[in-house]
Amino acid sequence: MRNAYFDQLDSIVADLVTMTNEVQHAVAQATIALLTADAEIAEKVITDDAAIDATRERIESESFQLLALQQPVAGDLRMLVAALRMVADLERMGDLSVHVAKVARLRVPQPAVPAEIVPTIERMGHVAEEMVGQVAVIIAKRDVEGAISLVEKDEEMDQLRRSSFRLMLDESWSYGVEPAVDIALLGRYYERIADHAVSLARRVVYLVTGETLSKQDL
Amino acid sequence: MRNAYFDQLDSIVADLVTMTNEVQHAVAQATIALLTADAEIAEKVITDDAAIDATRERIESESFQLLALQQPVAGDLRMLVAALRMVADLERMGDLSVHVAKVARLRVPQPAVPAEIVPTIERMGHVAEEMVGQVAVIIAKRDVEGAISLVEKDEEMDQLRRSSFRLMLDESWSYGVEPAVDIALLGRYYERIADHAVSLARRVVYLVTGETLSKQDL
Repeated sequence: MRNAYFDQLDSIVADLVTMTNEVQHAVAQATIALLTADAEIAEKVITDDAAIDATRERIESESFQLLALQQPVAGDLRMLVAALRMVADLERMGDLSVHVAKVARLRVPQPAVPAEIVPTIERMGHVAEEMVGQVAVIIAKRDVEGAISLVEKDEEMDQLRRSSFRLMLDESWSYGVEPAVDIALLGRYYERIADHAVSLARRVVYLVTGETLSKQDL
Repeated sequence: MRNAYFDQLDSIVADLVTMTNEVQHAVAQATIALLTADAEIAEKVITDDAAIDATRERIESESFQLLALQQPVAGDLRMLVAALRMVADLERMGDLSVHVAKVARLRVPQPAVPAEIVPTIERMGHVAEEMVGQVAVIIAKRDVEGAISLVEKDEEMDQLRRSSFRLMLDESWSYGVEPAVDIALLGRYYERIADHAVSLARRVVYLVTGETLSKQDL
């Protein structure tokens, strides 16, 4: 039997998927702005973040209303509490995309990323974007297997970050301090986006299986 | 009239204060490890983080049980949802202290921070520690005024970060890329600890007044 309550629960899941897609777009556009030194695209990522924040507020308010009015128990309660945490992860991922866009904007018309390290940063951007895209599918389909496969991409992100450090700290690094500082922070932003993606996937696994997966499993 | 339910709510607030004090200790010790290049203290910050994570799990489990069994409404519901979010902030602040300690450990026996920039980083560490200490009082006393005064310290943190960038990007910077990368990341970690402190204070204000303060107000 369907009723308004279940429709509202479904609508929260649909909103989470929408918000994840918005975040994926922000990550992708921030990386393009960064690699093409495009101030206009960077600016758009920064201003569009308000829409992501608005989606967060809408989901929070809907979840809170259901918590207060319907007094859900067991699985539904768990789902609503998870939704409140997931929007916090997603909002942070949006903020991190804004940070990437701001590095791009700060260095325009120069590209922030020296040619030698472009392939590494480009791959970081793609891995982050792919991970967020996978999260949208994981939430929509409650896909536990997909969640487990995210761990491989997260490991690639860690490797990319290590190789960016190797490049910057090598004697042959000729670009000086400023680009190194930019790269260190950009690497941190992409790494955090990946961490939040793993955290989101972990919440879906917990919702579906009732079990908390450790970092090792996921 | 007092009953077990209210005792449990009080106990969650007390646990949040305890966890905040644990985090304050972690921030303080991580800064000492960093500035004195003390591997033993750094190691202790890293291993002691498990205790902070355990406190988080205890508070989450207590809050979730109350949500599920007592079906609280209005203020109590808001408090429990806030507690679930606050432990997430506090756990991240613990993780960020671990990141500071790991930078210290990586460079031992050398200090990670060149002498010229020690005063700036030392002040960042103190501001972060003070902010976390203030948060403990704000939670314990539901102190809205204290929450508003946190904004000044957060502004000082932003200024310190800007001055660290000025030092690193000045022509006279003679320490090369590696310390600059360390300082950029350390500045980010302290800034994020401060951000989470403001976020915690904002949640207390919301609980007490029912109103969301914007970044400008807080």
